[in-house]
Amino acid sequence: MWPFSAAEIRSRLAATSVTLRRCLRLGVTMAKSKFEYVRDFEADDTCLPHCWVVVRLDGRNFHRFAEKHSFAKPNDSRALQLMTKCAQTVMEELEDIVIAYGQSDEYSFVFRRKSNWFKRRASKFMTLVASQFASSYVFYWRDYFADQPLLYPPGFDGRVVLYPSNQTLKDYLSWRQADCHINNLYNTVFWALIQQSGLTPVQAQERLKVDEVRTQEVRLPAEMEGERMTVTRTRARPVPLYCDLIGDAFWKEHPDILSGDN
Amino acid sequence: MWPFSAAEIRSRLAATSVTLRRCLRLGVTMAKSKFEYVRDFEADDTCLPHCWVVVRLDGRNFHRFAEKHSFAKPNDSRALQLMTKCAQTVMEELEDIVIAYGQSDEYSFVFRRKSNWFKRRASKFMTLVASQFASSYVFYWRDYFADQPLLYPPGFDGRVVLYPSNQTLKDYLSWRQADCHINNLYNTVFWALIQQSGLTPVQAQERLKVDEVRTQEVRLPAEMEGERMTVTRTRARPVPLYCDLIGDAFWKEHPDILSGDN
Amino acid sequence: MWPFSAAEIRSRLAATSVTLRRCLRLGVTMAKSKFEYVRDFEADDTCLPHCWVVVRLDGRNFHRFAEKHSFAKPNDSRALQLMTKCAQTVMEELEDIVIAYGQSDEYSFVFRRKSNWFKRRASKFMTLVASQFASSYVFYWRDYFADQPLLYPPGFDGRVVLYPSNQTLKDYLSWRQADCHINNLYNTVFWALIQQSGLTPVQAQERLKVDEVRTQEVRLPAEMEGERMTVTRTRARPVPLYCDLIGDAFWKEHPDILSGDN
Amino acid sequence: MWPFSAAEIRSRLAATSVTLRRCLRLGVTMAKSKFEYVRDFEADDTCLPHCWVVVRLDGRNFHRFAEKHSFAKPNDSRALQLMTKCAQTVMEELEDIVIAYGQSDEYSFVFRRKSNWFKRRASKFMTLVASQFASSYVFYWRDYFADQPLLYPPGFDGRVVLYPSNQTLKDYLSWRQADCHINNLYNTVFWALIQQSGLTPVQAQERLKVDEVRTQEVRLPAEMEGERMTVTRTRARPVPLYCDLIGDAFWKEHPDILSGDN
Repeated sequence: MWPFSAAEIRSRLAATSVTLRRCLRLGVTMAKSKFEYVRDFEADDTCLPHCWVVVRLDGRNFHRFAEKHSFAKPNDSRALQLMTKCAQTVMEELEDIVIAYGQSDEYSFVFRRKSNWFKRRASKFMTLVASQFASSYVFYWRDYFADQPLLYPPGFDGRVVLYPSNQTLKDYLSWRQADCHINNLYNTVFWALIQQSGLTPVQAQERLKVDEVRTQEVRLPAEMEGERMTVTRTRARPVPLYCDLIGDAFWKEHPDILSGDN
Repeated sequence: MWPFSAAEIRSRLAATSVTLRRCLRLGVTMAKSKFEYVRDFEADDTCLPHCWVVVRLDGRNFHRFAEKHSFAKPNDSRALQLMTKCAQTVMEELEDIVIAYGQSDEYSFVFRRKSNWFKRRASKFMTLVASQFASSYVFYWRDYFADQPLLYPPGFDGRVVLYPSNQTLKDYLSWRQADCHINNLYNTVFWALIQQSGLTPVQAQERLKVDEVRTQEVRLPAEMEGERMTVTRTRARPVPLYCDLIGDAFWKEHPDILSGDN
Repeated sequence: MWPFSAAEIRSRLAATSVTLRRCLRLGVTMAKSKFEYVRDFEADDTCLPHCWVVVRLDGRNFHRFAEKHSFAKPNDSRALQLMTKCAQTVMEELEDIVIAYGQSDEYSFVFRRKSNWFKRRASKFMTLVASQFASSYVFYWRDYFADQPLLYPPGFDGRVVLYPSNQTLKDYLSWRQADCHINNLYNTVFWALIQQSGLTPVQAQERLKVDEVRTQEVRLPAEMEGERMTVTRTRARPVPLYCDLIGDAFWKEHPDILSGDN
Repeated sequence: MWPFSAAEIRSRLAATSVTLRRCLRLGVTMAKSKFEYVRDFEADDTCLPHCWVVVRLDGRNFHRFAEKHSFAKPNDSRALQLMTKCAQTVMEELEDIVIAYGQSDEYSFVFRRKSNWFKRRASKFMTLVASQFASSYVFYWRDYFADQPLLYPPGFDGRVVLYPSNQTLKDYLSWRQADCHINNLYNTVFWALIQQSGLTPVQAQERLKVDEVRTQEVRLPAEMEGERMTVTRTRARPVPLYCDLIGDAFWKEHPDILSGDN
């Protein structure tokens, strides 16, 4: 796996000693301080204080990933459970996350308004969430896909979005949940047309265009229940929930999530 | 591993159907569009065009990680090789990276000046690098640590830094390489004092304070050669190198890395 | 005032015709489109939605400006009135400013939370406020300083700060007002020591160091009343007020300023 | 001009003393420190080092301003000379500007690459340029418009754009100069059709649509020569020039402008 020919080892040693001789001639500390001005090119990316910090992750090319790993359609419950396991791990390892919400191959993490973790640097928030989620995905794969080996390590992109009020944060989560339902309505019907009615994917797509206005009335089969997942803290430990975030009931039951101290 | 009690499944179904009824009553599409204004809170983070985009990763709490996994001191060659394997994977999976440089638990990736990957959005660059690196670390662990199981999934933080000229980019890489040598000089002597001279860590630290001015003259043992790693592309495939980046020789041998087309 | 020698005019014509010939040869439109890529270097600086946008101006080198124009010490009421006239002009000419607060040579302008003026671009907000304020300062100078000609055009620096909640905005204004009082307490006593007690500036400074802890108990003379100024809208027209912003009374009397529609 | 009724003065005094009593009760210093946390909401806006910093100003509603002040069409030489006088003043008052270029109601100012003026804060650069330019416009108006009183104080918007290389900076200036020529070609012909051929504005517009492809061949009248202006430093003093920036000749004659030390 690692090409250590004798020639290569010789070249490594030679190269190292060139660098070292150069450093030692200059004095290593002097050599370093000469270049240290490049630190000033790092931009400050502190998040505005008192805002909710949301990190949203999306699987990279998960359409292909799902096919290569034979995910069940429209929702693979093992894959959804693995996603939520990763979200739990992120919440346990990182600080100040009060709630997380996911669906399909995406997950959103909400840091408390007054978090001062890593001085609120956006790049720290998003890369630590993305990398912890990704390493957990590989680490816990086997617990959910015992019979299905992981073929390659997946990637996740992430972003930071700030929400200045409780209302805008709730609307963000409602947006993701409504999006989840629209996708699920579509996918559930799409795959039912293929799996149960024997249509081809193209035919199913065509049919759905025609029926678009009527999909709102469709009766959903039981498979849909696994589609999205919320993880929140109950007495400090993250616990997965399956619940409606769009109405008020959830927020009334969990007043601590949006409380002033956060 | 996953708590699916009958009660929980019932509550999931109930919650789902509340959300659905709500969505269906509103009309799902309408429900979603009502919340879509929250997209406007996403800030644009496009990198300044024509600048080198550098993503630097650092292992999170790798001091502890190294101890838990019994890494050899001062440099564990398996760990360094795994790092470089991850860097290679990142370069193969992501686009437009022209060179990468690493040492210890950090790695820097340089995207070409004129890259337009994901419209140069800084958050895409740093989270995709961080997550791909982290998932690769777990995925390839066994190839380098056959006898040492991975105890938990590690995290990596990342940042984006822009360099507007070839000179500033070269100085950035020289800064990292000089830093690497200073750390290695220190660590090599520190562990030699412990492992070969029988000092305690505190005694070794004391001795090094006294000798600080003289460490520049120290003769380095052979273990040091593995300390840092460069990965660059030769005919499109990333290849690891062990070489001096501080002088001009490397850049003259690889004129394509900084060429105008990048 | 303008050096239009015959030689210069000839050189202007010659230079113009070089550029023109170049443009005409290329085709002017083509010439322009070749360079238009430079537009992509403009960064987006949209203010986070739903936040109060504050622009704060400060006079540049106003210590010197006050001396050159013989401002009365500690507060020159003509200067303060001119500042407030400029603030009124800014509020009349620009859109969406709900309140302004000033003291000495600084002024803060608050744009309503939901303003979409110039798509909330921070650079538009701050440069239009700064330039309108500065041009008004020269334009209205004579109305307040009939006997004192303006010797040179002054500059003002500005910045944008976002406040995500009513409480943080109120605390911002309280901060400026408390700052104003501290400065006034100090300046009033400082100039009283000079003007009424015959101390030199150095002696006055010394005395104030000693008394620092006691300045909080000082009785303020009547001159202090002109120190700060608030401009708000009453039925759409900006009106200057002299009032306390730190307590609740002001905000209860003017509920429209922080109302949800803003 | 200033409404100082007895009632108002009483209310000012009363309000002041409420604030003061509040401050004194708290202790002014304590009152201030309680609110000082709001400073943390100021975002860092440092310009990337080693990049050319360009501030571009545009007159606000100058179409209307030109009409109200009877500017000659298509170019009013007094207005152009006043613009350049303001640019000179900006270059004399502010630091580190190496070249400025203007046309019509816009002006661009280029700060040297290595400027560390106000720690390279973008907001300082753009607001100081905008306010100094605007106050100078009013201050020097009479020198160019002796017979035409200034009716109201004008505003200017500004922005900061970074250019990471000499080539991109030169292309920026060429873009503005090509834009200038296109506008002038159009305006010159447009007004010639009205003033000399007796067309109405609508007819002229129609005619120009038809002729669009042919405008490149038009012969320009002498009025056009005043259209744009460059100000650069010769032995430290800003001097206006009328020259072609698109070709290489200008940059060869003035090598110091782009020299490494800048």
